[in-house]
Amino acid sequence: MGGVIDGLPSGLPIDLEAIQQLVDLRRPGQSTITSPRNERDRVEILSGLMNGITLGTPIGFIIRNQDQRSEDYDQLKDLYRPGHADHTWELKYGIRDHRGSGRASARETVCRVVGGAFAMQLLKCYGVQVHAWTSSIGPVYLPDALVPDLNIIYQNDVRTCHLPTAEAMRDFIESIRNAGDSCGGSITCVVNNLPAGIGEPVFGKLPALLSSAMMGINAAKAFEMGDGFDGTLMKGSEHNDVIQNKNGKTTPSTNHAGGTHGGISNGNDIVFRVGFKPVSTIAVKQTTINRAGEEISFSATGRHDPCVVPRAVPIVSSMAALVVADLMLKHRTTRL
Amino acid sequence: MGGVIDGLPSGLPIDLEAIQQLVDLRRPGQSTITSPRNERDRVEILSGLMNGITLGTPIGFIIRNQDQRSEDYDQLKDLYRPGHADHTWELKYGIRDHRGSGRASARETVCRVVGGAFAMQLLKCYGVQVHAWTSSIGPVYLPDALVPDLNIIYQNDVRTCHLPTAEAMRDFIESIRNAGDSCGGSITCVVNNLPAGIGEPVFGKLPALLSSAMMGINAAKAFEMGDGFDGTLMKGSEHNDVIQNKNGKTTPSTNHAGGTHGGISNGNDIVFRVGFKPVSTIAVKQTTINRAGEEISFSATGRHDPCVVPRAVPIVSSMAALVVADLMLKHRTTRL
Amino acid sequence: MGGVIDGLPSGLPIDLEAIQQLVDLRRPGQSTITSPRNERDRVEILSGLMNGITLGTPIGFIIRNQDQRSEDYDQLKDLYRPGHADHTWELKYGIRDHRGSGRASARETVCRVVGGAFAMQLLKCYGVQVHAWTSSIGPVYLPDALVPDLNIIYQNDVRTCHLPTAEAMRDFIESIRNAGDSCGGSITCVVNNLPAGIGEPVFGKLPALLSSAMMGINAAKAFEMGDGFDGTLMKGSEHNDVIQNKNGKTTPSTNHAGGTHGGISNGNDIVFRVGFKPVSTIAVKQTTINRAGEEISFSATGRHDPCVVPRAVPIVSSMAALVVADLMLKHRTTRL
Amino acid sequence: MGGVIDGLPSGLPIDLEAIQQLVDLRRPGQSTITSPRNERDRVEILSGLMNGITLGTPIGFIIRNQDQRSEDYDQLKDLYRPGHADHTWELKYGIRDHRGSGRASARETVCRVVGGAFAMQLLKCYGVQVHAWTSSIGPVYLPDALVPDLNIIYQNDVRTCHLPTAEAMRDFIESIRNAGDSCGGSITCVVNNLPAGIGEPVFGKLPALLSSAMMGINAAKAFEMGDGFDGTLMKGSEHNDVIQNKNGKTTPSTNHAGGTHGGISNGNDIVFRVGFKPVSTIAVKQTTINRAGEEISFSATGRHDPCVVPRAVPIVSSMAALVVADLMLKHRTTRL
Repeated sequence: MGGVIDGLPSGLPIDLEAIQQLVDLRRPGQSTITSPRNERDRVEILSGLMNGITLGTPIGFIIRNQDQRSEDYDQLKDLYRPGHADHTWELKYGIRDHRGSGRASARETVCRVVGGAFAMQLLKCYGVQVHAWTSSIGPVYLPDALVPDLNIIYQNDVRTCHLPTAEAMRDFIESIRNAGDSCGGSITCVVNNLPAGIGEPVFGKLPALLSSAMMGINAAKAFEMGDGFDGTLMKGSEHNDVIQNKNGKTTPSTNHAGGTHGGISNGNDIVFRVGFKPVSTIAVKQTTINRAGEEISFSATGRHDPCVVPRAVPIVSSMAALVVADLMLKHRTTRL
Repeated sequence: MGGVIDGLPSGLPIDLEAIQQLVDLRRPGQSTITSPRNERDRVEILSGLMNGITLGTPIGFIIRNQDQRSEDYDQLKDLYRPGHADHTWELKYGIRDHRGSGRASARETVCRVVGGAFAMQLLKCYGVQVHAWTSSIGPVYLPDALVPDLNIIYQNDVRTCHLPTAEAMRDFIESIRNAGDSCGGSITCVVNNLPAGIGEPVFGKLPALLSSAMMGINAAKAFEMGDGFDGTLMKGSEHNDVIQNKNGKTTPSTNHAGGTHGGISNGNDIVFRVGFKPVSTIAVKQTTINRAGEEISFSATGRHDPCVVPRAVPIVSSMAALVVADLMLKHRTTRL
Repeated sequence: MGGVIDGLPSGLPIDLEAIQQLVDLRRPGQSTITSPRNERDRVEILSGLMNGITLGTPIGFIIRNQDQRSEDYDQLKDLYRPGHADHTWELKYGIRDHRGSGRASARETVCRVVGGAFAMQLLKCYGVQVHAWTSSIGPVYLPDALVPDLNIIYQNDVRTCHLPTAEAMRDFIESIRNAGDSCGGSITCVVNNLPAGIGEPVFGKLPALLSSAMMGINAAKAFEMGDGFDGTLMKGSEHNDVIQNKNGKTTPSTNHAGGTHGGISNGNDIVFRVGFKPVSTIAVKQTTINRAGEEISFSATGRHDPCVVPRAVPIVSSMAALVVADLMLKHRTTRL
Repeated sequence: MGGVIDGLPSGLPIDLEAIQQLVDLRRPGQSTITSPRNERDRVEILSGLMNGITLGTPIGFIIRNQDQRSEDYDQLKDLYRPGHADHTWELKYGIRDHRGSGRASARETVCRVVGGAFAMQLLKCYGVQVHAWTSSIGPVYLPDALVPDLNIIYQNDVRTCHLPTAEAMRDFIESIRNAGDSCGGSITCVVNNLPAGIGEPVFGKLPALLSSAMMGINAAKAFEMGDGFDGTLMKGSEHNDVIQNKNGKTTPSTNHAGGTHGGISNGNDIVFRVGFKPVSTIAVKQTTINRAGEEISFSATGRHDPCVVPRAVPIVSSMAALVVADLMLKHRTTRL
C-alpha cells in the first residue's frame, strides 16, 4: 500500500510517531472483536520531509504488507462473494486481484489514515480538531444527549465515548461473531473550532465533499449532517439555528444544521454521522455463483472482522481532516 | 442564471422541448403549495448545437430572470436570516448579494436541471432512465413496499408516486404554510438499466459522487444508498444481496445495497434517498442579528416555498443523471 | 461567444470600461491591415459582480455576434481548407460547424481576452503588469537590444513598440495582402514586477503553463522563454544569470533565463516569445479535397486577416495574465 | 524517487524489462560525456499489476537512490548556484533540500521515464510509436533534410540519428567539459502513426499539452511544432499543408504544421523540437551570493553533466508518450 500527499504547505513540523499511532488504531488484530490478522502497518515516508519539516513537495509513503496468507484468499479466486465487490470489480475491469481482494479491500483505507494524520497536524496549527466515535453497533445506540467523553474513545475496543454502552456494543459484536455472522453500525464525527467561511459553493460545499469522502469508505451506506433525516420531520421554526452574537463571535445557538449553512461552515461544530452496512464476508453459508455462472454454496473461512465500525473510526476522522484541510487551504484564495 | 455543459459527445440529437419541460417542472408558481413567484425560466442555448445535434463542444446556456421584485429582498440587506446562508456567505466572501440571495439562492438549481436534462438525453441512448419522487413530507411517508407509479409523479403537486399519499402530503404542506412555517421531507431516486461496472474506485465511487451531487443541493442534509441507515441494523446474512445468474445476466437478487458493491454498479437498480431540512425562510417571527451584531426580530414577508421537496424532485433526478452520464463516459477508458 | 471566470477573489473593484477596451483591441475592422469585418464585440456581464465589485462567485459573460455574413462561409461547407482545422475538426467530432468555422475559429479568443482583462485588474492590485507587442512580421524584426516604448504599442496598427519598424511591418503586410497571400510573425511578452516564488513544480511550472496557454492560441506554433533556442548555443558560463543582492532584493543581474529558474519566478521580468504561422485562409488558389475526397481547387473569398499577429497581441497578454494570476493565487497555499 | 500512474486501462500486458531498459537509458554514468555518478535506477513496481497484466488500478513504483554522496552537495547548503533553482526554491517554500537539490534536481525525471515507458506500451497496442533524438549540441546541428536512422539513436553517446554528426557532437561536449563549462542543444521528437482527431480544444490542444510537458522538463527553454519559428517567415501559400486523399486516407502531403491543425492531430506525423539551455552547475568559477546575501565566489566540484541533452532524449519521448496516451484515452469520450 502507498500513496502521495500533495499540497501540504511547507514549514510544517511533522510528528511521525503520531502518524504511526493513528495508523495503528486502524489495523486489525487489536482485540478479540476485530480480525486476528496481525498486520504490522509500518509507515515508511519516502519524500517531502527534511529533518521532520515539510518541504512543500509531495510526501510519498509506503506500507509493506506483512501478515499475508494467500491461502486465505485462494478459495475466492473463482467465485463471487455475496455483497462484496468481487463481482463488480471483475465486471468493470475484466480482471481482478483476488489476493486480499486487491484494491477493493478495505486495506486501502490505511492510506487514507496516513493522509488524514498529516492533515490533522496541519489543522492543529489552526486549533482545529477532529474527533470520531462509534455511535451505534447494530441496535445498540449511545444514549441521547450524551456529552461524549473524548478521552476514552481509543481506550475501549469499540471506539465509543461512553463505557457502559461500549460494553453492550462489544457484547453484541461477540454474539454476532459467534454466530458466524456480521453487523453494521454508525460513526459520529465532530470537527471543533473550524472558522466560519470554509466550503466552496456550489460544487465544493463542505457537506458535499464530506459526504463524498465518507461514502467512499468501504461499507459506508449513509451520511447525514446535523439532524439529518430526523430534521426532515421538523418545522422550519424548530430547525432554524438562531444566530447569536456572543463575545464578538456570531454563531448559531443551536446546531440542527450540523455546522454549515449554504455549504459553508458557520462557526459552530461540524457534526455528521456515517452509517455502515454489516460486513459482507461471513462464515454463515450462503448461495452465490462462480465465474462459470453456476450456483454454488459458500462460507468464508478467512480471518474477517464481524463489524467494520470500530476500525472505521480513525478512517472517518482521517477523511474528515483531509476534506477540511483542503478547504481551509482553498479558502485562502477567496478574498482579495 | 447560466452555465456551460462540457464533455457531451458529438452527434447527439437534442430535444429542446424536453429540456424546457424538465426546467418548467422545477420552477415556482406551479401550484398553491409552491412559491407564487411566476418565474418564466426560458432556456436559451448559446452554443454547442447545430441543427439540433451536439457538436462535441461546450453547450452554453442562459436563463433570464423575469419576475424579480427587489423589494422582496430589501428587508434582507442588513440582517441574517436564521438557518440561511446569508450569514456564512458574508463571513466567507466579505460581501454578499442580498438581491434574491445571489448565488446562495436555490434559484441556481435551474442550471443543474438544464444540465441534467441534457444528460438524460445521452443516457436515453443507452437505455438508462432516472426517476425521482417525493417519498416523505414531514411525517407523511409513502407506504412500505409500494410499487411506484412513475406515470403520475408529475401529475400531482407534491411529485410523488401514490395518489392517496399525495393528498395527505399536500394537506400537510398547506397546514404548515397556513401557520407561516415550513417543513422538510425526502426524495427517492432510482436509476434503471444502468450497466454493471460504472463507478471509479477509490475516489470516484458511484455512491460517493452521487452523495456529493445530492448534498450540494440547497437544503439537502442526508443521503443513503439502498437500505442506508436501516441497513446498519441488519446482519450480514440478511443484508448481503445474493448474486444470481438469470438469462445470462448476473445480478443480485435483492437490492439492500442500492445497486452498488465496492462503489461500482452491480447491474441492479441504483436506489438512493435524500433528506431535506425544512425551508429556513418563514413568516413565523424569529430572533436573529443584523450586520451590526444587534439582536433583532424578523419574519419573512417575501414569496417563499413552505416546502422545497416537490420542486427538488427534478433537481435530484438531474444531478443523478449528470453523475451517471459522467461515469459512463469515464468508464469508456477503463479497458484496453 | 461567452465564458465563465471562476476563482476570482471577492472584493475586487472592476473597471468594466477597461475590459471593453482590451476586447476592442482584439476585434477585426480596426485598420486596413486587418479583416474588414466590423465585429462589435460588446461584453455583457451576467453574474458575479455587485455594484462593480466581485462577489467571489463565477463571472459569466456573453458577446453577441453582430456582423456575420453566413454567405462568407457557405463555400466552406463541403470542402476542407488547406492548413485549417476544418478537416481535423470533422475527423475528431464527425460533425463540424462550418458557419464561421464554429469553435475552431479564432473568434473564440475574444473570451480569452475578457478573462485576461479581469486577471489584469487582479494583478494590478499586486503591482504586476503584463505587456505584449509584435516583435516580428515575416522577415521584419524589431532592432536588437531595443528598449521597448510601451506607450505606443496600441497607437500603431501592427502593435509594436518602435515606430520605424511598425511602418516596415505594415508595408510588408500590405504587400502580402495585395498578393492574396498571408504572413506570420512573433510576439514578445513581458510580465513586470512579479514576485519571486510563483510557479508550481513539477507539473505546474510557470514556463510550462505559459507555453500551454500560448500554444493553445490559434496559429501559435512556437514558444521560448528568455534566450530560448538562441540559448542552446551558449555556454553555461555565459547563460547563467548571476544572482545579485541589490537594496535587499536578490535578483539575477541578467535575464537569459527569461525570469524563471526551476519553473519558479526569480524576481526578474518574465520574458517569452510566441511564433505564429501565416494565416491559412488565403485568396491564392490552392488544391484541396472536398468531403467526398475529390481533389478540388479553392481560393477563399471571405474577409480574412492577412496576418494574425497584430490582433493576437492582446490575446497573448491576456493568456499570460490568466496564467500568472492563477499561479499567484495558488501560491497562497504554499507555506504554513 | 517514486510515483503513481493512474488511468492506465486494465488488461495491458506489461514488459517490465522494456521499462527498465528505457530508465537505464536516462541514468548517468553511461559514457564519458555524462556524469560519472553511477546511479542504479532499479524500478520496483508496488501495485497495479497481476501476473504482468494491468489491473486498471494505480501503478505505484519506487526507485531507491544508490550512489549518493552527500559531501558532493554540502558545499551548496548555504549558497545559491547561478542559473539554478536553489534560489527560487527557497524563495518559494522558505526551505529547500540541498541534498542532491531535492525535488528541483533533474533526478525527478526518472519518474517521467517510468510513466512514459508504460504509456509507450499502451500506444504500441494502437501502432503508435514515439522517437526522439538529439538534433543539435551547441552549434553542431544534424544535416538538413536528413532521413533519421532510428536504429542508431541509442547506439551513440549523444543519442542522435546520424553517426558522423554524433562524433562532432561528442567532440564538442568533451571540449566544453574539459574547459569546466557546459553546453545546451535541442531534441527532435516524432510520433508516428497517430490517428487523426487526437487533441482537445480549446484548452487541451495537442500542441498545448505537448509544450507544457516539454517546458516542464529541467533546463527546457523552447518548444516548436513543425516549422515553428522558421514558419513565421513563410507565406500562407507556402506553409499550408495541402490535404490529399491517398488510398482512402486523407492526410496533408507536407508537414509544415508538425501534424496538427486547430490543436488536433491531422493524420500526419507529430513533429516538434525542444531547446535546452546549457547546464547551470559548472566548474568554472562564478560569482553568486550566499544565504546571508553576501557576494561569494563559487565553482562546482560535484559530478555534473556538461550537457543534459543526451540524457534528456528518453525524457522527451516519455513525456510525449504520456501526453499522447492521455489524449487518446480522452478521445474515447468524444463521440456518441
